[in-house]
Amino acid sequence: MSLTEFEIINKYFKGLTSDNDGVSIGIGDDAAVIDVPSDQQLVTSVDTLVSGVHYFSDTDPYDIGYKSLAVNLSDMAAMSASPRWVTLSLTIPENNPEWISKFAEGFSDLANQYGVSLIGGDLTHGPLSITVQIMGVVEKNCAVKRSGAGVGDRVYVSGYLGGAGLALRYLKKELEVNIQPSKSSVDRLLRPEPRVKLGLVIRDLASSAIDISDGLVADLGHILEASNKGALIELDSIPLSDDLIQINNNDKRLQIALCSGDDYELCFTVPVKHKEKLEQVISELNIPITCIGKIIEEKSIKWLTSDGTEYQVSVDGYRHF
Amino acid sequence: MSLTEFEIINKYFKGLTSDNDGVSIGIGDDAAVIDVPSDQQLVTSVDTLVSGVHYFSDTDPYDIGYKSLAVNLSDMAAMSASPRWVTLSLTIPENNPEWISKFAEGFSDLANQYGVSLIGGDLTHGPLSITVQIMGVVEKNCAVKRSGAGVGDRVYVSGYLGGAGLALRYLKKELEVNIQPSKSSVDRLLRPEPRVKLGLVIRDLASSAIDISDGLVADLGHILEASNKGALIELDSIPLSDDLIQINNNDKRLQIALCSGDDYELCFTVPVKHKEKLEQVISELNIPITCIGKIIEEKSIKWLTSDGTEYQVSVDGYRHF
Repeated sequence: MSLTEFEIINKYFKGLTSDNDGVSIGIGDDAAVIDVPSDQQLVTSVDTLVSGVHYFSDTDPYDIGYKSLAVNLSDMAAMSASPRWVTLSLTIPENNPEWISKFAEGFSDLANQYGVSLIGGDLTHGPLSITVQIMGVVEKNCAVKRSGAGVGDRVYVSGYLGGAGLALRYLKKELEVNIQPSKSSVDRLLRPEPRVKLGLVIRDLASSAIDISDGLVADLGHILEASNKGALIELDSIPLSDDLIQINNNDKRLQIALCSGDDYELCFTVPVKHKEKLEQVISELNIPITCIGKIIEEKSIKWLTSDGTEYQVSVDGYRHF
Repeated sequence: MSLTEFEIINKYFKGLTSDNDGVSIGIGDDAAVIDVPSDQQLVTSVDTLVSGVHYFSDTDPYDIGYKSLAVNLSDMAAMSASPRWVTLSLTIPENNPEWISKFAEGFSDLANQYGVSLIGGDLTHGPLSITVQIMGVVEKNCAVKRSGAGVGDRVYVSGYLGGAGLALRYLKKELEVNIQPSKSSVDRLLRPEPRVKLGLVIRDLASSAIDISDGLVADLGHILEASNKGALIELDSIPLSDDLIQINNNDKRLQIALCSGDDYELCFTVPVKHKEKLEQVISELNIPITCIGKIIEEKSIKWLTSDGTEYQVSVDGYRHF
């Protein structure tokens, strides 16, 4: 027997609403009502995942549920915000309890891990599409913007780049080289770990931050455009996924590392005076970060090889159209 | 030449972001940052409109833009909240500047009318689908819930019911009777006027409220279920759209009036002691309201005809699955 919207929400998702955690009215009314602490600001971001665009039609629904929340948590990380509440708009072609159950499990596992409450949503019949809006909080005027990078600030990235991009190309059969991605690269694509903790510890140190969803070239470009600056990046210092190191073709390797979205690592800038403090707060986390260059006045990105010559990166990040 | 996501947002939507109105960081960063006044709570709701489900594939994009925001404003009205900010997730099959431009115009016209700022969104390639999340504010613990209806409270509806339902059936060629809906009915379907002002003036008087999006039977049912009560409704007192009065078949007329969504009028309950105060605040608005019955202890809806016999309403509201 098919379930109504209300029955589906009650059965699979209602456990994700909590009565505490600032939720005054949760799922089940015309709107949710929440308390934002008076010393904090609300930080909010929305992302839509579409079947065939952001994931494959046969992707495990657990992974779709997980990733639909993960990409939003990543936006909170990029603002140095603490994620708190989330809404879910789920458009599905048929009422398939097994699919919904697995989707909800992936979504819920990550929500519980980060203490995020589901406070509302919409369930609609139509082509598979998932829109998640996350809401978090940050102390007043402490959110880290894209626009604060200053000349001389060091540019950092977290983790290793290119693993998710390699896995995506492999699964799409677009990989011209014969490399099977490791489990860690496939996980990075399907179940990226949002860098929420890292975002929080760099809040008072970083001058700008962004999450790498469209590739380092595009996303560092957004920081530079917003900050009205440029950057010198040392190619050899960019931390590559182990899988990429097996690719002999230098251009191919760099293209995947620099122009792939989906890694959901953070790219951020830190003034030199905060270097020691940064190393101190990072040492308490189990997240690698690497300095890859510095901010300059001239408004372009110069990619430098080890012999000091400039490398031309010819491709840009993921274009949505 | 096709535009990127960023260019489209800048061209058509950026004017809808304001630097004041509590928006600390608007469109163009990883997330928006807003200030919720310390004496108020955040009220938020999300709705998705899907082509072929919530509107026709050939519906004027202006109307789609308008309605995608209107249904969310209606949720704010049902909570007695003041709408303030909105995000828009737009999934479109092709980059069609004319379509986007008209959609943005309809969306913007309504947003400007209600002083709502667009603070974020997502633009994705895929089957046409629109998700709008609205955020508003309400004084602490003053939101009107569905669950507060008390025995003896009077049940009110705003406006006239069934016009949008008639227009929808006409446009879908499902109308068995030969009636062409008036412009006012078609407008109610395509460009419903959210009852935001009404929601605000009944805030301290109403014991419960909901917007009629799924039909009076279903939506009054939600109030009664949440309040653990029942209702006696006088069929003759239900304010019908003029178009419906032309339908001779009583069952058909009532089915359209009671079981159609899309009118986006409010249904609310008010304790008898507030009757005079209600009439006073309503007189200052140009919105008709009608008392249609009262709340009872017994947990069912009794639809009474003028001779006191009970009428059986056999159909329920719009089922999402």
